[in-house]
Amino acid sequence: MDKIPILKMGHFLLVTIQVDMHDRLALALQDDLTARVVKDRAKGVLIDISSLEVVDSFMGRMLGNITAMTHMLGATAVVVGMRPAVAITIVELGLSLENLCTALNVERGMAMLTSQLNTSAEAGGHEHHQKGNPRTAHF
Amino acid sequence: MDKIPILKMGHFLLVTIQVDMHDRLALALQDDLTARVVKDRAKGVLIDISSLEVVDSFMGRMLGNITAMTHMLGATAVVVGMRPAVAITIVELGLSLENLCTALNVERGMAMLTSQLNTSAEAGGHEHHQKGNPRTAHF
Repeated sequence: MDKIPILKMGHFLLVTIQVDMHDRLALALQDDLTARVVKDRAKGVLIDISSLEVVDSFMGRMLGNITAMTHMLGATAVVVGMRPAVAITIVELGLSLENLCTALNVERGMAMLTSQLNTSAEAGGHEHHQKGNPRTAHF
Repeated sequence: MDKIPILKMGHFLLVTIQVDMHDRLALALQDDLTARVVKDRAKGVLIDISSLEVVDSFMGRMLGNITAMTHMLGATAVVVGMRPAVAITIVELGLSLENLCTALNVERGMAMLTSQLNTSAEAGGHEHHQKGNPRTAHF
């Protein structure tokens, strides 16, 4: 497999990571995802990692990078389906993912993005979210 | 990887097939998916095969089996994201997948399932779809 599929669902994009990421695959995902955010004018990206039983520092950094990149492009990335063991590893590895949005599953992640979208539309339709947003809150 | 993740989205389940299926993985997917259809009372199942560049007769039969099984359980399966080469192969292999619902992408597949759901609710809320339904129509 040379690339991970990106599925469009309304205003959002969904990526399901099912395999361990090696360097080339991670770079391909970064390129594809940022290109698709721009092309589809996506407002949010959901990254499902429910298949991953373990993460290493490379994978953790990659999640952080993708979140930062999509934020630059005016979209919000939400990591969904994280297993408890993975959360433990990320904290124990000391990875600073303080900007990472998380949700229990895809449904809740999508509800979170939809409510953010509605809030930002009500606030005047700003493309970027304000810095004060509670981006790390579990939904 | 020992199993393929199944994501719940509202009334529907989404499965993204990213790897070539071997026997054990296909059987595990059948078991998991049928169990989840019952557990989550799903009305529809979306199977995304946009990653698959080729299919063989085993994969084709598996798609047919999953469609038939979910139908037995009162849900509708829709295969989405099929590449042209895959469609050609399925026809050339002579696989009889006449009951297979297909849609161009996840968004359209979900729209198709939603409209079926609304139609069946209007028709008196039958759990099973009638035999006369145009199940092979592209949406």
